[in-house]
Amino acid sequence: MKVGHDLMSLSEFNANKELMVRLKHDADLVRSITELARSRGIEAGSFTAIGALKSARLGYYDQKNHEYREIRVDSACELASCTGNISLKDGEPFAHIHAVLADEAGNTKAGHLLEGIVFAAEVHLRQLEGPKLERKYDEVTRLSLWDAE
Amino acid sequence: MKVGHDLMSLSEFNANKELMVRLKHDADLVRSITELARSRGIEAGSFTAIGALKSARLGYYDQKNHEYREIRVDSACELASCTGNISLKDGEPFAHIHAVLADEAGNTKAGHLLEGIVFAAEVHLRQLEGPKLERKYDEVTRLSLWDAE
Amino acid sequence: MKVGHDLMSLSEFNANKELMVRLKHDADLVRSITELARSRGIEAGSFTAIGALKSARLGYYDQKNHEYREIRVDSACELASCTGNISLKDGEPFAHIHAVLADEAGNTKAGHLLEGIVFAAEVHLRQLEGPKLERKYDEVTRLSLWDAE
Repeated sequence: MKVGHDLMSLSEFNANKELMVRLKHDADLVRSITELARSRGIEAGSFTAIGALKSARLGYYDQKNHEYREIRVDSACELASCTGNISLKDGEPFAHIHAVLADEAGNTKAGHLLEGIVFAAEVHLRQLEGPKLERKYDEVTRLSLWDAE
Repeated sequence: MKVGHDLMSLSEFNANKELMVRLKHDADLVRSITELARSRGIEAGSFTAIGALKSARLGYYDQKNHEYREIRVDSACELASCTGNISLKDGEPFAHIHAVLADEAGNTKAGHLLEGIVFAAEVHLRQLEGPKLERKYDEVTRLSLWDAE
Repeated sequence: MKVGHDLMSLSEFNANKELMVRLKHDADLVRSITELARSRGIEAGSFTAIGALKSARLGYYDQKNHEYREIRVDSACELASCTGNISLKDGEPFAHIHAVLADEAGNTKAGHLLEGIVFAAEVHLRQLEGPKLERKYDEVTRLSLWDAE
């Protein structure tokens, strides 16, 4: 649905199953959630996660040059916040995830989660039922964004 | 419902629709969500958002002097975490939002979100159905807080 | 359910009530949510919270020495992000909570929330209905993790 005002798109869903998932030690959080969505046919969803990572790669999107810069976190950290959604990209379930990581002094690094090697991770994922929620190339940001026509 | 122990108030709701919303480039995230709630008559809700902002203004509440101090973030940043709720204030839907922002090195600024100019933003909002959830002036904090009588 | 790939366990729930709760001034957020779960018999759930704390104690899990290190935050701070879940530990509802705190300059400290003295706190908790979700001792991490057999 195209909407006026300050929204580019709005899609309406009904709640379906709620999954509580523990990820495998040494797995990549991003790949794990993507695989979970693909194996269960979850085409739309929303999730949070908490836990700890052994290492991670974060992304910062350079809004002028339109490219991701990578920030490496090479040491063990708490997964202090992790929020993500699942939608379709090129017809396949795709996970978009942001995270805040904290070191042993509580200091943080945050951004778009490119990879997170799991020490322990607990995910709450809500499967959503409704229209197709698809990412399409957006000229302005040069990112793949929701386009709910 | 007034409750004992460590709760000031507790209101019970049923889940209603789940909205997946993309906000408009250059819109203010706070105003966009407030408008969304008002235009759809959402009187209670909870949401998360991820994306990137062009700039933002954060608030820190000075608990002794009872006033907000403003923290300006004048550069492009990732919206690493964004959590908010919708309830009624003076009879109108009102959005209370906190956020964690990250710069190109992954370093963060966080607090109460006063304004966030959208580069790209994906919101998952859950509409809730139930009793009126209203903010009223609280003498102790001098903030408008939920008062579920 | 034991699952292959990158998951250790997955449990499927249905959404039940959604609670919007205001915590008491000066209460401990961790104890308040634990008491809420116990008093209402919530054995599985997921929540977010925003607000402000008077002080807090955060934990960082030392993945090599298998012990928590404590980070004290002795000043007033915004509860910029707070994500948690409820499951059973030794047969009782147990709250696992991570948080991101922000000071007056917007600078952050984050980690596992051990204690948070409430200035004002608004919690959105989703009660889940389904199988028992129990924490059991995990040899690899030496933490109590979900074991959904």
